[in-house]
Amino acid sequence: MPSHEKPESITVGWVGTGVMGAPMAAHLQKAGYPLRVYNRSRAKTEKLIAQGATGCDSPAEAAQGSNFVFSIVGFPADVREVYFGPAGILSTVRPGAILVDMTTSEPTLAVEIAQAAEDKQAMALDAPVSGGDVGAREARLCIMVGGPQEAFEATLPLFRLMGKTIQRFGGPGAGQHTKMVNQVFITGVMIGLCEGLVYGHRAGLPLEELIQTLSTGAANSWSLQNLAPRCLAGNFEPGFFVEHFIKDMGIALAEAKRMNLSLPGLALVHQMYLSLQAQGGGRKGTQALLLAIERLSGLEHFAELDKH
Amino acid sequence: MPSHEKPESITVGWVGTGVMGAPMAAHLQKAGYPLRVYNRSRAKTEKLIAQGATGCDSPAEAAQGSNFVFSIVGFPADVREVYFGPAGILSTVRPGAILVDMTTSEPTLAVEIAQAAEDKQAMALDAPVSGGDVGAREARLCIMVGGPQEAFEATLPLFRLMGKTIQRFGGPGAGQHTKMVNQVFITGVMIGLCEGLVYGHRAGLPLEELIQTLSTGAANSWSLQNLAPRCLAGNFEPGFFVEHFIKDMGIALAEAKRMNLSLPGLALVHQMYLSLQAQGGGRKGTQALLLAIERLSGLEHFAELDKH
Repeated sequence: MPSHEKPESITVGWVGTGVMGAPMAAHLQKAGYPLRVYNRSRAKTEKLIAQGATGCDSPAEAAQGSNFVFSIVGFPADVREVYFGPAGILSTVRPGAILVDMTTSEPTLAVEIAQAAEDKQAMALDAPVSGGDVGAREARLCIMVGGPQEAFEATLPLFRLMGKTIQRFGGPGAGQHTKMVNQVFITGVMIGLCEGLVYGHRAGLPLEELIQTLSTGAANSWSLQNLAPRCLAGNFEPGFFVEHFIKDMGIALAEAKRMNLSLPGLALVHQMYLSLQAQGGGRKGTQALLLAIERLSGLEHFAELDKH
Repeated sequence: MPSHEKPESITVGWVGTGVMGAPMAAHLQKAGYPLRVYNRSRAKTEKLIAQGATGCDSPAEAAQGSNFVFSIVGFPADVREVYFGPAGILSTVRPGAILVDMTTSEPTLAVEIAQAAEDKQAMALDAPVSGGDVGAREARLCIMVGGPQEAFEATLPLFRLMGKTIQRFGGPGAGQHTKMVNQVFITGVMIGLCEGLVYGHRAGLPLEELIQTLSTGAANSWSLQNLAPRCLAGNFEPGFFVEHFIKDMGIALAEAKRMNLSLPGLALVHQMYLSLQAQGGGRKGTQALLLAIERLSGLEHFAELDKH
């Protein structure tokens, strides 16, 4: 375990420096950890390199000699490539290293990576996050972890530089499963919220006062307080991209099927988001579900707001 | 307007002294308003009568000579009977009186009552509440009001004795519509919550820690914080009865149909609650949706907890 040593003597490989990964890696860099960074499009690593990180040409090179290797990329296929591909992390990982995938990805893939890491005398954690780009920048992420307790404890000092709520939920895959539960909770909140807003608008209610009043009671939710006001203002920017939410729901549905679970609400919301994406909404924020819901009834009130 | 007078000189008719109505009426009584009370089963008025209220044999008798008449009964059919029946409030209401229906009922019926009141030189408000029996006892209800501004202002001193958040949302029916939006918001939260808990249990996650962690982020809701822990403890007692929630969803669906709105999430959740009721869960609390959701997959984990 390298965690009791000084940051300066602990090398961290970092794969994926997008809107989430870049600020997360920067927190480690600022704390003194030498970084070896790789990103598919090199440009996104430049700022870290300018501040002292070593630029790498592959995940394998980033992992080379590193004590920790973090990854946060796009889709499960990207995760698979980054770990198992010909220039993947597992081709160079050193014994005793800890691999941490922070992508929201498949629980079963997390189990595969953990097994492959073990075969190399390394350990792996799955540690997806919530809190978005703002949470990443402000080091206030919620980090949901699966994997060996020993690896979790060793990584905690680094997690604490990136997140505020950090919890281990079990062995390999448990972090991903927890993130899936988080997303399933949100699917329900979102469809209720959007259907309620369409109903309320159609009934001629003053929606601003309605949101204020109803958020004091049993209908309250984070989304009611944070996303509903954006809808009223015609702000359907991400926040969290529709196409990423669709990815997450797809993973949850596949895992549910594997576990023999019937989840009709999740399936319905997934379909409604697919409809939104099919009509050009994939790069909007998740609150744009409202546009797909009103469109079911031939309405365009919120879509009109969106244009202004 | 009688509102600037002393409570002692303002007679209040009160129809419906059930688990909600009795404590609400008691707050007015305590503030000095003389009460004329009626309830279908007389026994539930006895405590108020012992403390000075006049017992009545019909809604008409409760309304006789009253400055305000409040009603809070069960179903829209009960509201119709209480107002329009042969011994109904509208048969005796005096000119200048204000009628306040606090039942969660049909917006269209609220409009009918308002029109009928106007024909008698009276005014009517629809003012359904949220906050449950605890909110009623502690005078912390949320009161959602529709009807004339003038009647709203005149009734405010009395509402303030029963509720904490009091807001008018428009003309007749607007209070009921707002309550419907509240319930639609909750339908979504509930199905997401229950599907997420079933997934989480099936995936072997520690649900108590999961609830604690996820309620710090974007998946947070009142239900996650208040109802999910009851589910884990096998506590499916009401709170809010499944059969009453089914009534409310039925009203919302009928109003949505009337307004030409397609609300597939609401329709699905309504069906799942009907399934729960069909299997004996009508008198449980709304969090018992969890039992119907796990049953879809042939699971009885939470049902087993319920037995203990």
